Amino acid sequence: MTDWGARAERLLNDLSTCSEPGPGVTRLPFTPEHRAAIDLLQTQMETLGLTVTLDHAGTLIGRIEGPLGSKTLLMGSHQDTVREGGAYDGIMGVVLPLMALEKLRSDGIELPFSVEVLAFADEEGVRFPTALIGSRALAGTFDPSVLFMVDSQGITLSEAMVAFGLDPDRIGTLARNLNDVIGFVETHIEQGPVLEQEGEALGFVTAICGIERHQIEVIGETGHAGTLPMSGRRDALVGAAAIVTEVDRLGRTTPDLRATVGALDVVPNVVNAVPRRVRMTAEFRSPDDQTRCDAGRSLHSYVRELALRRNLTIKVQKTYSQVAQPCDVDLSTRLTRSATSMGAEGLALPSGATHDASAMADLCPIAMLFVRCRDGVSHKPEEFASSHDMGLAISALAEYLASIDRQTIQADD
Amino acid sequence: MTDWGARAERLLNDLSTCSEPGPGVTRLPFTPEHRAAIDLLQTQMETLGLTVTLDHAGTLIGRIEGPLGSKTLLMGSHQDTVREGGAYDGIMGVVLPLMALEKLRSDGIELPFSVEVLAFADEEGVRFPTALIGSRALAGTFDPSVLFMVDSQGITLSEAMVAFGLDPDRIGTLARNLNDVIGFVETHIEQGPVLEQEGEALGFVTAICGIERHQIEVIGETGHAGTLPMSGRRDALVGAAAIVTEVDRLGRTTPDLRATVGALDVVPNVVNAVPRRVRMTAEFRSPDDQTRCDAGRSLHSYVRELALRRNLTIKVQKTYSQVAQPCDVDLSTRLTRSATSMGAEGLALPSGATHDASAMADLCPIAMLFVRCRDGVSHKPEEFASSHDMGLAISALAEYLASIDRQTIQADD
Repeated sequence: MTDWGARAERLLNDLSTCSEPGPGVTRLPFTPEHRAAIDLLQTQMETLGLTVTLDHAGTLIGRIEGPLGSKTLLMGSHQDTVREGGAYDGIMGVVLPLMALEKLRSDGIELPFSVEVLAFADEEGVRFPTALIGSRALAGTFDPSVLFMVDSQGITLSEAMVAFGLDPDRIGTLARNLNDVIGFVETHIEQGPVLEQEGEALGFVTAICGIERHQIEVIGETGHAGTLPMSGRRDALVGAAAIVTEVDRLGRTTPDLRATVGALDVVPNVVNAVPRRVRMTAEFRSPDDQTRCDAGRSLHSYVRELALRRNLTIKVQKTYSQVAQPCDVDLSTRLTRSATSMGAEGLALPSGATHDASAMADLCPIAMLFVRCRDGVSHKPEEFASSHDMGLAISALAEYLASIDRQTIQADD
Repeated sequence: MTDWGARAERLLNDLSTCSEPGPGVTRLPFTPEHRAAIDLLQTQMETLGLTVTLDHAGTLIGRIEGPLGSKTLLMGSHQDTVREGGAYDGIMGVVLPLMALEKLRSDGIELPFSVEVLAFADEEGVRFPTALIGSRALAGTFDPSVLFMVDSQGITLSEAMVAFGLDPDRIGTLARNLNDVIGFVETHIEQGPVLEQEGEALGFVTAICGIERHQIEVIGETGHAGTLPMSGRRDALVGAAAIVTEVDRLGRTTPDLRATVGALDVVPNVVNAVPRRVRMTAEFRSPDDQTRCDAGRSLHSYVRELALRRNLTIKVQKTYSQVAQPCDVDLSTRLTRSATSMGAEGLALPSGATHDASAMADLCPIAMLFVRCRDGVSHKPEEFASSHDMGLAISALAEYLASIDRQTIQADD
């Protein structure tokens, strides 16, 4: 019997060599490393009998054609990594569907619909300050203005794509039609510790969390730490500390909310001066938009009260927000049932991180399968998912593909 | 009638031109600007009939010789400024005693003891990472190892002093004998807002605060702000915020304690990552050493409890401490009485900042006279003390000099 998890592991090891020199894997979009990964995946796809194309957003597409008039199930994830990242984040979501298709072929099962396995060029947004280029192109939400963004070498995204053999002017033509699509299924490492803590190999994503970010500036008054009496102080850091504590409290006491102050900078930041100004961030994530918005509003009113109480000026501005993307109930239920029939109990959980599926949700129903990762670690050389868990995921995906019924797959007339 | 405050203001304005290009005054030790200030002060001193020398620590000394066998009263402060500092901090404490001596002369009063007005080269410690060179030399506490310290240009303190015409090898010979000294009286702007708030021109320092500084490192665990559940978090910044709050609480609830977290740095300091490490400082100052030490101990035990409660590793280390220097009761009482007799009510208060008097306390009794400064501001171009307040200080100093009795001034046999 073939050990599909071990096969996935070997292919992922091969793909991890498509990298800038280590530690870890560094594979940025539209680079020689990206090209090497495409070549390796293309060979694998062609061996499997898929028809391979590279679209003008740099997405590698391997397609199995179903019967005439059948819809297409889209599967996949991104090929790129962060700098000195790992061998699983993204690319595993390309490899496991390929293994599932190979397993079905070796089991002699022919699917009554088309399947495309997609390897998006860029989800991490490391090289250019934009991301999700390939998935937004398919969803018809690509904003051409990002083509003028430059990387650290001063190369525009447009130039990088042209040098890669692509025609960015044609990205607008890539948008798919919902009528032709069954949905998008993304497989990804969890990037968190929950599955490991619960002893489960697989997770079924209920929703991709919405996000909002706030930039907060606390302005007080500096002075000599020895000569400024305590009673008259307007210490910006004391105000900021209250905000850090409140954001953490909101996260701990509100179900389904994650709340983080990640960045904080003090001015003048010397041992013997009362801090004059603090700039800090606050981020809220929730699968439930109402919960997230309530937290943001609660922070704003806390900050107003704090500014009065501490005689500080506090500016707070929402700088980013993204709504939650619930996963499709039908797709997800079928995926869960398939995994369970393979002996994987699994766990339903939200995704705190953004994925290509977030962008694909603008096109079609989405579902996400999480695979347990060691110590919850991602974006590091130590990132790891076991061949055992990947084998379970491959079985679940194959069973899922085989279970999709004729009712689902017929294009609307 | 001579307006002594206005005369002081004119001299201070002249001295403020002995500066690197502005904004504000930048006059570092052993530089052309220092030389220019010495030249100007020397002219002024000689006009007043003082005998002028420059000792090997770079202290400009103007001396009026009293009767044979009489002791010497030392007065003065430092000539140097911080970068882009003001025209009063330090140098005003040289100018006002000179004006007081001139006032006495114009009033026909001859003192039955010797007086020296000192302009120390360096108290701010801006050019070299050491300070109080001149006052430590007189007190016999100068540590010659600091001569090897380098400035930002790679010039050692020793080289800078030699280039200035000094012989640093002879600093060890400068120590004075307590038997020859009545005491040291330093006049300085308050550098704080208390006198202004209380509507008083002059302050009488009760003690120069002791200081202790702690370096604190809070070590938690980083993770993706979206994927790491709240319940398992070991957020270093949440721990640090509790410490900031506690230090401020200690300062606000403990009489005679000033408590400040001035510097705080977060790693990795990005919007979407839970902070892994925070390095921060805590500083306590008090005129009472017991109060200060209790605060330090209280912080250490708070931090131990916090580390357990939050599952963090917290390292805390006392990196600096300096005991409080009480001002001499006799000297201070006489100074207060002199000011009161001139119509200045004044206020007794501790000095939160360190001064040359802190080092001189190792030699002899000290007293300090504070002059109100506008908005409590120092170390900035906006630093300002009014000619009215300086005039009151000059009158108080002159009255004080005239009031010292024969009992005090005779050297012990």
